Amino acid sequence: MATVPPSLLVVSAHAGDFVWRAGGAIASATARGERAVVVCLSYGERGESAKAWREGKGLEEIKALRREEAEHAAAELGAETRFLDAGDYPLIGDREILDQLVRVYREVNPTVVLTHTLADPYNGDHPEAARLALQARVLAQAIGYDAPGDPLGAPPVFFFEPHQPEQCDFKPDVLLDITDVFATKRRAMECLGAQQHMWDYYTDLAVRRGVQLKRNAGPNLGFPTDTKGEAYMRYYPQVTDRLE
Amino acid sequence: MATVPPSLLVVSAHAGDFVWRAGGAIASATARGERAVVVCLSYGERGESAKAWREGKGLEEIKALRREEAEHAAAELGAETRFLDAGDYPLIGDREILDQLVRVYREVNPTVVLTHTLADPYNGDHPEAARLALQARVLAQAIGYDAPGDPLGAPPVFFFEPHQPEQCDFKPDVLLDITDVFATKRRAMECLGAQQHMWDYYTDLAVRRGVQLKRNAGPNLGFPTDTKGEAYMRYYPQVTDRLE
Amino acid sequence: MATVPPSLLVVSAHAGDFVWRAGGAIASATARGERAVVVCLSYGERGESAKAWREGKGLEEIKALRREEAEHAAAELGAETRFLDAGDYPLIGDREILDQLVRVYREVNPTVVLTHTLADPYNGDHPEAARLALQARVLAQAIGYDAPGDPLGAPPVFFFEPHQPEQCDFKPDVLLDITDVFATKRRAMECLGAQQHMWDYYTDLAVRRGVQLKRNAGPNLGFPTDTKGEAYMRYYPQVTDRLE
Amino acid sequence: MATVPPSLLVVSAHAGDFVWRAGGAIASATARGERAVVVCLSYGERGESAKAWREGKGLEEIKALRREEAEHAAAELGAETRFLDAGDYPLIGDREILDQLVRVYREVNPTVVLTHTLADPYNGDHPEAARLALQARVLAQAIGYDAPGDPLGAPPVFFFEPHQPEQCDFKPDVLLDITDVFATKRRAMECLGAQQHMWDYYTDLAVRRGVQLKRNAGPNLGFPTDTKGEAYMRYYPQVTDRLE
Amino acid sequence: MATVPPSLLVVSAHAGDFVWRAGGAIASATARGERAVVVCLSYGERGESAKAWREGKGLEEIKALRREEAEHAAAELGAETRFLDAGDYPLIGDREILDQLVRVYREVNPTVVLTHTLADPYNGDHPEAARLALQARVLAQAIGYDAPGDPLGAPPVFFFEPHQPEQCDFKPDVLLDITDVFATKRRAMECLGAQQHMWDYYTDLAVRRGVQLKRNAGPNLGFPTDTKGEAYMRYYPQVTDRLE
Amino acid sequence: MATVPPSLLVVSAHAGDFVWRAGGAIASATARGERAVVVCLSYGERGESAKAWREGKGLEEIKALRREEAEHAAAELGAETRFLDAGDYPLIGDREILDQLVRVYREVNPTVVLTHTLADPYNGDHPEAARLALQARVLAQAIGYDAPGDPLGAPPVFFFEPHQPEQCDFKPDVLLDITDVFATKRRAMECLGAQQHMWDYYTDLAVRRGVQLKRNAGPNLGFPTDTKGEAYMRYYPQVTDRLE
Repeated sequence: MATVPPSLLVVSAHAGDFVWRAGGAIASATARGERAVVVCLSYGERGESAKAWREGKGLEEIKALRREEAEHAAAELGAETRFLDAGDYPLIGDREILDQLVRVYREVNPTVVLTHTLADPYNGDHPEAARLALQARVLAQAIGYDAPGDPLGAPPVFFFEPHQPEQCDFKPDVLLDITDVFATKRRAMECLGAQQHMWDYYTDLAVRRGVQLKRNAGPNLGFPTDTKGEAYMRYYPQVTDRLE
Repeated sequence: MATVPPSLLVVSAHAGDFVWRAGGAIASATARGERAVVVCLSYGERGESAKAWREGKGLEEIKALRREEAEHAAAELGAETRFLDAGDYPLIGDREILDQLVRVYREVNPTVVLTHTLADPYNGDHPEAARLALQARVLAQAIGYDAPGDPLGAPPVFFFEPHQPEQCDFKPDVLLDITDVFATKRRAMECLGAQQHMWDYYTDLAVRRGVQLKRNAGPNLGFPTDTKGEAYMRYYPQVTDRLE
Repeated sequence: MATVPPSLLVVSAHAGDFVWRAGGAIASATARGERAVVVCLSYGERGESAKAWREGKGLEEIKALRREEAEHAAAELGAETRFLDAGDYPLIGDREILDQLVRVYREVNPTVVLTHTLADPYNGDHPEAARLALQARVLAQAIGYDAPGDPLGAPPVFFFEPHQPEQCDFKPDVLLDITDVFATKRRAMECLGAQQHMWDYYTDLAVRRGVQLKRNAGPNLGFPTDTKGEAYMRYYPQVTDRLE
Repeated sequence: MATVPPSLLVVSAHAGDFVWRAGGAIASATARGERAVVVCLSYGERGESAKAWREGKGLEEIKALRREEAEHAAAELGAETRFLDAGDYPLIGDREILDQLVRVYREVNPTVVLTHTLADPYNGDHPEAARLALQARVLAQAIGYDAPGDPLGAPPVFFFEPHQPEQCDFKPDVLLDITDVFATKRRAMECLGAQQHMWDYYTDLAVRRGVQLKRNAGPNLGFPTDTKGEAYMRYYPQVTDRLE
Repeated sequence: MATVPPSLLVVSAHAGDFVWRAGGAIASATARGERAVVVCLSYGERGESAKAWREGKGLEEIKALRREEAEHAAAELGAETRFLDAGDYPLIGDREILDQLVRVYREVNPTVVLTHTLADPYNGDHPEAARLALQARVLAQAIGYDAPGDPLGAPPVFFFEPHQPEQCDFKPDVLLDITDVFATKRRAMECLGAQQHMWDYYTDLAVRRGVQLKRNAGPNLGFPTDTKGEAYMRYYPQVTDRLE
Repeated sequence: MATVPPSLLVVSAHAGDFVWRAGGAIASATARGERAVVVCLSYGERGESAKAWREGKGLEEIKALRREEAEHAAAELGAETRFLDAGDYPLIGDREILDQLVRVYREVNPTVVLTHTLADPYNGDHPEAARLALQARVLAQAIGYDAPGDPLGAPPVFFFEPHQPEQCDFKPDVLLDITDVFATKRRAMECLGAQQHMWDYYTDLAVRRGVQLKRNAGPNLGFPTDTKGEAYMRYYPQVTDRLE
C-alpha cells in the first residue's frame, strides 16, 4: 500500500541542535538511502555563539559562520538544509515563519518528524521551535490551507533529547541504536568547532544511552559492547501490526 | 544475533480478561506461528461471575465453568493456558504465587509480555496482577533466583486496555492493527457466554481504536475502512534501529 | 439568594464542534427552559471542511455553508449562535477577538461555560479556543475592564470531550446523563451533512459514556438500558452543599 | 427510581481524623436526617496520642480514652461509630480487617463514602486506611464475595483534606458549604481535649476554604461573609443530569 | 570565589502581589543588608482595583494610587521599585516589555529571582508575568543579546505562593522562616489600604505555613510557637555542598 | 537552639547501592566530622551478584563476599554499617524488618536520611527499601511506638539517583557538589571488585552531574572545570531562613 518514499524532517531551533541531538537518527536514515531535510529556524547567532561574541565578531559574520558549520555537519550526515533565519533569543514564531514551515512540510512530505521537547527551562527557543513544528504539521494536513502541494499525511513526531533531560520532563520512549553510524555522527559533531567540549560530552551520552538500550532490549537481541544510542520521546501513539 | 524464538506471555487476573483486552495481539502472534501462553492467576470466580452466582451455582462449579470457557477462548486464539488458582476478590499476590509465576517465566522465556495496567479504581485484582507480572519478570532475570531454567532476558511489557481507560490513567502508546485477526478475536469472545453484552461492546471498541489508528498512521499506510485496533501502553522504552 | 437566571455559554473553535461534543448538554439546558448561546470563533472553513474543498468550492462559499449548517444544528438544540469569524488553521486569539469574546460574556452573563480542552495534539485551534474562553471569562469579571455590562460572576467551566480523549489528557470528571435529549442531539448531528460518518461515531460514544455513567452511579439510581452520556472535565472545583 | 435511603460511611484511620477532616460533611448529612456511620480502624493509640504517652498513661488506658473522645465527637455530629481496633503505627490492612470492613459496607449500604487520601508522606496509616476503604468497597459489590447482605451499589468516594494538603497531592475537586453546621463541627472538635491547638487551626481552615468556595461559586450564589467550607477530592467521576 | 553581592529581583504582575506573596523574603534579604528590587509589570489598575472603580475613580488616578501604595509597601520592606506600566487584564508580554525586563536583569544582576507560578486559573496575568520573568532571565544570560551590561549568571528562581495554591499546582518545595521579619511584612501589607481583608488572611497563611515549617524541620531546629512562614517552589535544582 | 549533632542515615536495599548512588554525600558528611551509618537491608546476594553465581559460588559464600566488600567501601567512606540480612529478590518488608529499622532510627537519631526512589521498573527491591525507610522514619517519631530511645525529630529525606533515572521518575531537586571528596568515592567504588565496569560509568555520571551543577549555580559560585556532582530528590519541603 505504501507509496510515499520515506523521508525525515528535522526542525531545529538553532544551527547546531540537530547534530548533538539527532545526528544518529539522521545518519541512519541517509545510510538507508532515505532523504533527510534539516530546517534551522535560526542560526543561534545570539544565544549559542558565545565564543564568537567574545572574540568580537559581528552579527552577520556570526550568522555566516554558524551557517557554514551547520552545512558541513549536515553534509557529513547526508542531509539537506533549509535556513529560515527567523532570529533567536528570542525565537518568535509569528504567522510568517509558521507559513514558511508549512510550505517546507508540503514540499518534503516527511514520513518522520524530529524536533525539540515542549519544555526547556534553560532555553525558550527550543519549545518555541517544537510548537512551530507541531502546529505547521497540522496546518499542512489541511486541504484548505493555502500553500502549494498536497495535504500532508500524519507523520509520527519524535522529540530529541535536550541538554538537561530530567528538567525538561524528557522520559525516553524510544532508544535508537546508532552504533553503526556513530562514527558519522562524531565527524558531524567535529564540524562544530566552537563547541569542542561538547564532542566528548555527547559521545559519553551515546555510550550511556547505549547501555540503557541493552538493558531494555528483549532477550533476542545481541548488542555489541560498544553499542551507542540516542533517546527520543514519541508525541503520538505508535501504529504497528506487531508488538515488540 | 537473535536466537530466542518469539513467544508471548499474557498475565491475566481473571479467566476472561485476556480475551477482551488482548485477544487481537494473541491471535496476531499465533497467526505468525509464534507461541502464546496465557496465565490466569484466578478464575474470576467471585468477582466476575455474577450471572452464575445469581443462578445459584456453587464456588467449585463456577471455577470449572470459567476455566472451561477460558480454555475454549484460548484455543480459538491458538494459545496455551496456565491456571494458578490464586483466588480472586481479592487476588493476593503472596510469596508462593509469585514464585509460581517466576517459574512460568523461566519456562516460557517470553519475548513479549502483556498484562493489566498498574491502576484500576474499579478492580483491585487487575493492578495486583500487573504488579505480580512485573515483579516476577525481574526476579526471573536474576541468575541467583532459585528456580529451574535460565535467567530471563528483558522482554518488553505492554499494558492492555482496561474497561474504563481514562480512569485507569491509560493513555495509548501503541495502536495495534488487528484487522486481519479480528474475526478470530470475535469467535474467542463468543466463547464467553455469560458476558454476551460485552461482545458488541468490545467490537465497538475495536472499531474506535481502528479509527484512531488510521489517524495516527504515517502517510504511507493505506488502512482499509473496517480497520480494527487494540490499544496498549509500554512500560519500558522501545528499542529499535529505525524511527517510524 | 439566586437572582441570575441560568444560562449556558459554549465557546467553540469551529462551526461544528459544539454539536458532537456538547449537543446533549445544550439540549438539556434548553429543555429546562434555560438560555444557551454558542460562540463559533471560526467556521472551520480551512481545517474542517475537507469535503467542500475537494468538491472545489471557494473560501466564502465554504464559510457560508458551514455557517448555515451550524445555525440549523443550533436551532435543533434550541441555542442562539454568534459567529466571530476569526479564521481557522490557525485560529489566532489576538487582542481584538479576545475583546469581542469578553463582550459576549458580559452580555450573556452565563452561569455555566463549556469549551475545548487545553491540550489537543491533533488540532491547535481547539486549545487556542479554550485559552480564549478562559481568559475572556476572567477579564469579564473585572469591573475595570472597559466593556459594556456588569462584571461577570465566576461561572464554572467544563471542557467537553475531544476526538481522541486520552491523547488530550482528557479524564472525565463528570458523566452527564443525556438519555432524554439524545434524539435531539442526533437530529442536530444530522444537520452536519458533510460529516455523515460522525453521526454513528458519536452515537456509539454516547452509548459508551452511558455504560460508564451507570457503572459510576450510586446505588440509588436506576438508569435505563439505553442510557446515553457525555463526558466533561471541570476546570474549577465544584461548589455544593451536599456530597453526592 | 431511587429506593436506597441516603447514608454516609466514613473510614477513618484513627479515632480523631473524621472530626477534623469531615466533621462538616457528617453534620450536614445528619442534619438532613441521613444516617452516618464512622469506622475507626484504630484508636490512634500509638501515633496520635503523644500527650497521653507523655503523661505516662498505658496502652489500654489510652485506647479507652481515645475511644471515649471519638464517641463524644461522633455523638455531637449525630453519627454512629464502629471501632475495628486494628492497631496503628503501623496500621496493617490484613485479610481479616479487610473482611470486617466489607461486612460494614454490606450492612450500612452507604450512598456516599469518605476516607483519607491515597498519599500522605507524614503518616502511612492514612493511605493504608484509604486503600482498605477502596478495596473493601469493590469487594462488597461482588455477589460472589462471601459476606452477609446484598451486593453494594457503586457509591461515590470522596477523599477528605489531609493536614498538609499540597504534600499529599490534594487538589480540591469539591468545596462543601458547611456554614450552617459549623457550630456543630466546632463542638465535636472540642470533644478532642488533648488536641486543643487543633480547634483553632481547623476553624481557620474552614474560613480559608470558605473564602475559596465563594470565589469558585457561580454568579447566582449569595454566600454570607462568614461562609465556612470543607475541601474534598472525588475518586470517581460525578454522575449528574445537570452541569452546574 | 563569590564576588557578586547578593541581590534579589522580584517580578510582580501587579502592584500589590509582591507584598502578600513575597514580603517576608524581601524583608529578610534587606534585613541582611542585601539589595532588593521589585519590578511591577503593571499597576493592577483594571483587574485588582475593584474598590477604586466602584468609587468612580478614573484610570490614571487609579494607576497613581496603586503606584503610591506599592512604593510605600516597598519602602517598608526596604526594596527599590521599577514600574513598567505594561497594562493589565490582560497583561501582554510583547517584545518591548520583554526587552525592558532583560535590561533590568542586566542592571540588577540578581542572585535570586522571585516571581509568580506558571499556572493560575484565576488570573492570566500571573503566569504571563512568570513567563516573562523566566524568558528575560535566559535572554539576559546571552552575551549576544543586545543590551547594556554583562551577561547574567544563572540565578535560582522561586515561585511565590498564589492565592489558591492547589488550583495553581503549587506544591511547596521550600518553607522560608520569616518569623523575625513578619512585623515588617505586616506593616507593608497595611500600606495596601484598599485590601484590608487581606491583612488577616495573609497573616493566617503565615501562621499556617509556620506550622508546616516546624513539622518539616529537622530534629535540631527549635522554632518558637509563633513561627511564621512563606512557601516557595523552586524552578531549577538547588546547588549545594551539603544535604540538609 | 540546635543540640542534636548532625548524622546521616543511608538505607540501602543491597550491599552496593550506597556506594554508587550516595558515596559522595557520605564522604562529604564524614569529611566534616559527622557520623554516617549505612543500613544494608540485604546483601544483594541473589539479584546483584551475577558474577559470583556464574562462578559457581554458594549462597552463604556470596553473602559473606558482598558483606566484606560493602564493609571495605563503607570504611573508605568513613561510615558505619548495619546488615539486616532481610533477603533480596524479592526484598519483603515485613513487620519484623520494619521494627528493626525503627530501632536503628531511634539509635542513630539521624539529621538527614538517604534512600532509594519510590519507583524503579528495573528492580522492585529498591522502592521496597524506600517504603521501609519512610515508614520506619514516621514510626520512630511516635512516642507511643514501643522501641528504645527517644522519639525521632523530622529529618529531611533525599532519594539518591537510580541507574535509569528518567524511567524511575527521578527529576533532580538537588545537585550536590562532591568535587572535594570524589577521590574517596572512587576508592570506595573500587572496593566493589565484581562490578568493575561500573567504576567508570559512575565516574562519567559524576562528571555529567557536575556539568549540570555548574549550569544551575548562581552567578556567585566559581566551580572548577572538573566539578563532580551527585543528584538527589527531596521528599519533604526544604526548611530554611534564606532563599538561595
